[in-house]
Amino acid sequence: MDSFERQGLMRHLGARISHITPGRVHIVLPARPEVTQQNGYFHAGATSAIADSAGGYAAYTLFPEGTDVLTVEYKINLLAPAIGDHIEAVGTVLKSGRTLTVCQLEVHGVREDGSRTLVANGQQTLIRVSATLT
Amino acid sequence: MDSFERQGLMRHLGARISHITPGRVHIVLPARPEVTQQNGYFHAGATSAIADSAGGYAAYTLFPEGTDVLTVEYKINLLAPAIGDHIEAVGTVLKSGRTLTVCQLEVHGVREDGSRTLVANGQQTLIRVSATLT
Amino acid sequence: MDSFERQGLMRHLGARISHITPGRVHIVLPARPEVTQQNGYFHAGATSAIADSAGGYAAYTLFPEGTDVLTVEYKINLLAPAIGDHIEAVGTVLKSGRTLTVCQLEVHGVREDGSRTLVANGQQTLIRVSATLT
Amino acid sequence: MDSFERQGLMRHLGARISHITPGRVHIVLPARPEVTQQNGYFHAGATSAIADSAGGYAAYTLFPEGTDVLTVEYKINLLAPAIGDHIEAVGTVLKSGRTLTVCQLEVHGVREDGSRTLVANGQQTLIRVSATLT
Repeated sequence: MDSFERQGLMRHLGARISHITPGRVHIVLPARPEVTQQNGYFHAGATSAIADSAGGYAAYTLFPEGTDVLTVEYKINLLAPAIGDHIEAVGTVLKSGRTLTVCQLEVHGVREDGSRTLVANGQQTLIRVSATLT
Repeated sequence: MDSFERQGLMRHLGARISHITPGRVHIVLPARPEVTQQNGYFHAGATSAIADSAGGYAAYTLFPEGTDVLTVEYKINLLAPAIGDHIEAVGTVLKSGRTLTVCQLEVHGVREDGSRTLVANGQQTLIRVSATLT
Repeated sequence: MDSFERQGLMRHLGARISHITPGRVHIVLPARPEVTQQNGYFHAGATSAIADSAGGYAAYTLFPEGTDVLTVEYKINLLAPAIGDHIEAVGTVLKSGRTLTVCQLEVHGVREDGSRTLVANGQQTLIRVSATLT
Repeated sequence: MDSFERQGLMRHLGARISHITPGRVHIVLPARPEVTQQNGYFHAGATSAIADSAGGYAAYTLFPEGTDVLTVEYKINLLAPAIGDHIEAVGTVLKSGRTLTVCQLEVHGVREDGSRTLVANGQQTLIRVSATLT
């Protein structure tokens, strides 16, 4: 997506969209020192940032042309230390309304051998706005 | 704080602690393209990351030696476009228990003339753990 | 408020509005067995119900005629056992937008001698709708 | 469960547990004026109360003897008007830790013909405590 390319933060963190279908988007973030906290785990801020973006783009896949998406709020539980070769956020639309969309957010830690652990789980509310407003 | 220095993400974003008192920590993040989203505002992920860190360090100021802090969960409302010369997160301990701490999170957009806008408001739960566990 | 009188649940619980100013509403719920959980404390569900209502009415005080309010979502931390002669929820508008309103929620346990404890703290998002839609 | 029987609020609302398996509990609340808001829908407070209880009992099914459960916090999105013959809350354990448990919460509106609508979705954090503390 064009807008993803223009997101300085996602590029700066090294995140990329790995999967898009209507109502679902995956974002992958490889491990490196720039996205960790003091113990070498992925920082909760990095985990949350890609979760928020995954939900935002998932909502956006169901929007008509000429509209844009803003996050109203989200809540995220950090379930386990976020370790691995990379983390993968999955944003899934639970309810797509005319004004508001609600998404479920999951982040998995993925090891080199492909084994996965659920490291964060969240819920997000987004609003559809005219593209000229943003 | 030592642990802040070791947080790759905070350094990578360019965030720094600007104020510490027992139960309250401020973190400042200057504007630059690396922390914005597609419209030039501070990315919600950056806003959330410094809010989460501010709450985490606020909790930590009240902990005994030999303990560390982990974020259990947080919820944040993005109230207004996060614009300005810099954003400032304020984490304040609402309740400090033996195991769990609850913090209030606020993020303000600060313009060059010093005028401030509340751009995000949140609430966070943290857990105290033995420093050897983390 | 008329709408409060029509709220079966608030009446059934025994709750009443004790204070209204623009952007702030207090709701009081006296202790009795019908609103407690298995240990004799106020049930989290009762605590949350009056917090949600206090925020909803606080938002509503700032709405124009012919509109109504719906809760989009809320998050609440239960900070301490909710005990006392009564509990008092305070809903305060943090941000009142054209479509969305964000409120802060607090619930205090109040003893017979008037001493107060913060027993719950929350944050809520509400939407303004046309009164004919609800 | 004994503790459910002692929950004055659940009995007062007319709620009952309809299904228990390890890590999952369903609670049903029949429609009646005492649990509605001003428009005849189930009150968000009633919807939330049974969601919170369903998650609490789901967590409790996985606890060892001599322990009890307290809700730390929850967040709930009210997705659609809660109407129907009854509503059914489903609490499911996502992660069961030694100290903290995280549950997913869903509430469905169920019509007389058995058709179901997801009316609320939430996420909850609970803490395990010694039974003598509560």
